Amino acid sequence: MTNIPSSSSTFEQFGANAGTGPDPSWKWEDSRWRAIVNKVRAGPSLKPKQWPGGARVAVALSFDSDHETVVLREGGASPGGLAIGEYGARVGVPRIRRLLAKHDIRASFFVPAVIAKLYPKQQRDLVEIGHEIGIHGWIHERNNNLDPEVERELTRRAADVLAETTGVEPVGIRTPSWDFSEYTLEIIRDMGLLYDSSLMADDEPYELIEDGQPTGIIELPPEWIRDDYPYFNMDRFSGLRPHTSPRTVLDIWKDEFDLAFEEGGLFLLTMHPHIIGHRSRILMLQELIEYISSSGKVWFSTHAEIASYVKSLASTAEIVEG
Amino acid sequence: MTNIPSSSSTFEQFGANAGTGPDPSWKWEDSRWRAIVNKVRAGPSLKPKQWPGGARVAVALSFDSDHETVVLREGGASPGGLAIGEYGARVGVPRIRRLLAKHDIRASFFVPAVIAKLYPKQQRDLVEIGHEIGIHGWIHERNNNLDPEVERELTRRAADVLAETTGVEPVGIRTPSWDFSEYTLEIIRDMGLLYDSSLMADDEPYELIEDGQPTGIIELPPEWIRDDYPYFNMDRFSGLRPHTSPRTVLDIWKDEFDLAFEEGGLFLLTMHPHIIGHRSRILMLQELIEYISSSGKVWFSTHAEIASYVKSLASTAEIVEG
Amino acid sequence: MTNIPSSSSTFEQFGANAGTGPDPSWKWEDSRWRAIVNKVRAGPSLKPKQWPGGARVAVALSFDSDHETVVLREGGASPGGLAIGEYGARVGVPRIRRLLAKHDIRASFFVPAVIAKLYPKQQRDLVEIGHEIGIHGWIHERNNNLDPEVERELTRRAADVLAETTGVEPVGIRTPSWDFSEYTLEIIRDMGLLYDSSLMADDEPYELIEDGQPTGIIELPPEWIRDDYPYFNMDRFSGLRPHTSPRTVLDIWKDEFDLAFEEGGLFLLTMHPHIIGHRSRILMLQELIEYISSSGKVWFSTHAEIASYVKSLASTAEIVEG
Amino acid sequence: MTNIPSSSSTFEQFGANAGTGPDPSWKWEDSRWRAIVNKVRAGPSLKPKQWPGGARVAVALSFDSDHETVVLREGGASPGGLAIGEYGARVGVPRIRRLLAKHDIRASFFVPAVIAKLYPKQQRDLVEIGHEIGIHGWIHERNNNLDPEVERELTRRAADVLAETTGVEPVGIRTPSWDFSEYTLEIIRDMGLLYDSSLMADDEPYELIEDGQPTGIIELPPEWIRDDYPYFNMDRFSGLRPHTSPRTVLDIWKDEFDLAFEEGGLFLLTMHPHIIGHRSRILMLQELIEYISSSGKVWFSTHAEIASYVKSLASTAEIVEG
Repeated sequence: MTNIPSSSSTFEQFGANAGTGPDPSWKWEDSRWRAIVNKVRAGPSLKPKQWPGGARVAVALSFDSDHETVVLREGGASPGGLAIGEYGARVGVPRIRRLLAKHDIRASFFVPAVIAKLYPKQQRDLVEIGHEIGIHGWIHERNNNLDPEVERELTRRAADVLAETTGVEPVGIRTPSWDFSEYTLEIIRDMGLLYDSSLMADDEPYELIEDGQPTGIIELPPEWIRDDYPYFNMDRFSGLRPHTSPRTVLDIWKDEFDLAFEEGGLFLLTMHPHIIGHRSRILMLQELIEYISSSGKVWFSTHAEIASYVKSLASTAEIVEG
Repeated sequence: MTNIPSSSSTFEQFGANAGTGPDPSWKWEDSRWRAIVNKVRAGPSLKPKQWPGGARVAVALSFDSDHETVVLREGGASPGGLAIGEYGARVGVPRIRRLLAKHDIRASFFVPAVIAKLYPKQQRDLVEIGHEIGIHGWIHERNNNLDPEVERELTRRAADVLAETTGVEPVGIRTPSWDFSEYTLEIIRDMGLLYDSSLMADDEPYELIEDGQPTGIIELPPEWIRDDYPYFNMDRFSGLRPHTSPRTVLDIWKDEFDLAFEEGGLFLLTMHPHIIGHRSRILMLQELIEYISSSGKVWFSTHAEIASYVKSLASTAEIVEG
Repeated sequence: MTNIPSSSSTFEQFGANAGTGPDPSWKWEDSRWRAIVNKVRAGPSLKPKQWPGGARVAVALSFDSDHETVVLREGGASPGGLAIGEYGARVGVPRIRRLLAKHDIRASFFVPAVIAKLYPKQQRDLVEIGHEIGIHGWIHERNNNLDPEVERELTRRAADVLAETTGVEPVGIRTPSWDFSEYTLEIIRDMGLLYDSSLMADDEPYELIEDGQPTGIIELPPEWIRDDYPYFNMDRFSGLRPHTSPRTVLDIWKDEFDLAFEEGGLFLLTMHPHIIGHRSRILMLQELIEYISSSGKVWFSTHAEIASYVKSLASTAEIVEG
Repeated sequence: MTNIPSSSSTFEQFGANAGTGPDPSWKWEDSRWRAIVNKVRAGPSLKPKQWPGGARVAVALSFDSDHETVVLREGGASPGGLAIGEYGARVGVPRIRRLLAKHDIRASFFVPAVIAKLYPKQQRDLVEIGHEIGIHGWIHERNNNLDPEVERELTRRAADVLAETTGVEPVGIRTPSWDFSEYTLEIIRDMGLLYDSSLMADDEPYELIEDGQPTGIIELPPEWIRDDYPYFNMDRFSGLRPHTSPRTVLDIWKDEFDLAFEEGGLFLLTMHPHIIGHRSRILMLQELIEYISSSGKVWFSTHAEIASYVKSLASTAEIVEG
């Protein structure tokens, strides 16, 4: 059996036997599906009573700097595909930097080790002006399909490369697959990371629970609704094309922000420099940032600082009951 | 041959031999396709002359609480996928409850047995405040692909779990596949259910006819046009991504409602807590409910009450001629 | 090799060897691809200098009454799929009839023989009030994949069923595949049909040319841009879902009409009762018809009358030079 | 292994071993992925300090005249598919010509040799009124999948056909695959071409670097965001349907232009006569051109002239630092 994700329906994306093989899940004892569900689970919401400086909402902007690894992870060598990735480093990141600087925002960049090696100065410069660099795998490998020792080794080596490149130890990870293998949480815990930002069980930060036990790892949930990729990614050979307009996505993201503001919670956005960096999209991001800023009482911060803040409160019970 | 639905076109989704195998349907005698068509058929429309309390339109909101079964039905164990399901129970249902309470609306939740076991209190609480819990399979298995005795057993056991959990016998079903097998109607009839809500032959309630014989089972037709899933579902590996904006869907649903109101008929909406429960979407649902409420003369009710009402009229011929 | 259309890209949909097999087309002599191109070709535009009654634009509304054949053509038996088809005959056609009657419009319905047999009265009634019934295959078989003798036999038998059912010989066809086999044009010619409405080489009517020879058959070109199916069709297992809103499609169709009006040409629309017949869509069609009507000087007519008109002019050279 | 692009996800489109085969890229030495990345790379931006005539922005409109080769490249013979291609030559190109003439714009047409042979007068006429004809392969073959000697031979022969047809030697190419093989850049260099317009590493012109060495070839980057195909292409058997409305695409293209104008850069648009030539789309293109023109200080020009201009500046260092 191959690990290549086929152009399959939702029904297939998460399962091995599709419910119709020799071991369909409708035959399972309750204990079996309960064990699966409890493997990684969300603890209580860590939404704080208030954010630092009296802010009403926390805004966490993140950028996954995949660039050329979109091609390289597959062992590909297409000059066309690589150029699309190069655009991210060459055009996307500089535009993003200027926009963030203009609004005095610090953000988080999740960077595969191979990209840090290709563009070390770009990562150093980002750290120097206050942005965070987080782990995003070695070459954007599919971490949830690897042997556990390979996943562990690549994650550790990736962290080392980032530390060597920027002079700062990374404290957080966004897994390249936006998913965990059976071993990911253990690896992250063993590495002593502060937070992960890959799982989507809430809009607010929460603690990850493994087999019923608190892990101390903070989850900062991303969401595909607040990700540029599902709306804008172009895939020549399938149905994935840039078919939702930036102006429409702006409306969706404003709505997501509005309720986060009303609830006094977290608004976390994930973007990709080679996607969002294009002219018609960076204009939209600029408009979104202006919209958010104009609401006042906003704490723009890095993932690391937000995780650190809610973790410190968690231990002193300053959180809102979920 | 596998039962896994492939990423196939419409042309393939309903057929076994694709019209080009050794037994293409253009060779069939008329009696053969007539028997297939007559297996399950719509009886006369049961649209009443008027709705209770002089209401001009009936509004049936339903929520399919699939949650973690989206992963489990396939025998999957992805922490990422399970977290997406967990969001439905953890964030989606509470938001929906608050919204319904604010507008004093009772609705129907179709809940797989495994979800009732994972979140029993949530189901009990829903029943306590007047909502309906209906059958939605054991683990969201594909009911139309099972052996008849398995389908029968799982449907009965699912009903038992719901009754034990909530203290109320379910009277209706939405089949997990939104489709019948050759045996589904017989199973439903034998269980003495009042209604099904899976088939789409009309906008208005109708009686299901089996091989030309009335069954007494009421069909409350759902429609994908009035379902959140086709517009918002995110499938990483295929073309299914959240690409229609909530504001656009709001327009579609308003239009669907407007003509239902003008016709004096039924407006039935299907949603999923892990889909509609997100910030940008719950805002839209709130706006839709306000729009519907402002039209006046609306009967918000559960599926069970609507089915019961039109069935009582049917036997006394108070219905409008189709 | 199977005839089942795979979920393939455009690049594959028309070809047998995908340009990379043992006989790639970049190796072909010019004579070979010229013969392929010339097999069926568009003659000069038959856009008339003016339309009957001094109308500035001709509007041809057509409805492909596929109904249950979407399932039956594949040898399928899904009650869910058949109910979706039943909706077309039960709800869609009556709504369409009322709308056309309100605006005094005659239109063309292309009806598979099996549907004429299932709903004979519906077809007779349509003819009685002035609508046209055209050929649309036996059971919506894929005409371009059949052996020539089968295609010929099914097309003839389909015409016979329509004639017996309605009392009127059909004079036109929309091929079920919206495509020709190598033999389709010869079959149509031998049957003495007036027109086809399946090929898309122009916006205006034209004469079909076969191997360089005029055939006397009029082509009334449909277009997927002016078809409800690509925008609204729901396919559970692929990326085809109702994702373009009716209000957006209304804008596209208005734009298509506007330039047809400006050019003094033909505006031809294809719809499907089980697609367009839904509440949110029939409202849109109503608005489109009101928009078109308000432009004045419009000739709403059947395909047969339009084909007959331009053919009569063609023989007397009253057409505009292409 | 076949070369047919499967309906695969982005992850697969560029790679041979999908990262999970016997030689996954996470095992590679750094030197290996570095060599791949450096094969074809972008040199410094060639955005000039100003455009000719004091223009603030350069606008390069291009049309890929694929027409019937969409079918022929695959060895296909579908009359339906060929008619769709014929529309491009018969209806699309004349509408485009009239629109360009009205606004006195010269543009670039990239034309496969087979199309030049099918419609030689159309190409000659275009050249006569000042438009450019560029190379676009022989029969729109997938250039990145061919043996190097075949790719070289077809590219050369294609150039010869264009020169013979129009009397003008082509100086630029848009590769049919919008991608390079390992050999494409060498072939282009050996042919002495001025520019390529297939790779997307920037919004501005740049010089192509091969294995670290400047090549003197100018890249004028296209982008799928500024291409009509991803938004409008209709593929019956996959999810690719005309689902983004022209009015929405107009907004996206206006935004792309606005920032190009603000930056004083290049706005390059790619279209296809059989796609953009339709009524509802040509109206949109007309509105875009009016919008661009009204901004003033616009240099509408051919690709060849723009490449020539930036190349001449490059050698005298009149460019803006990247």
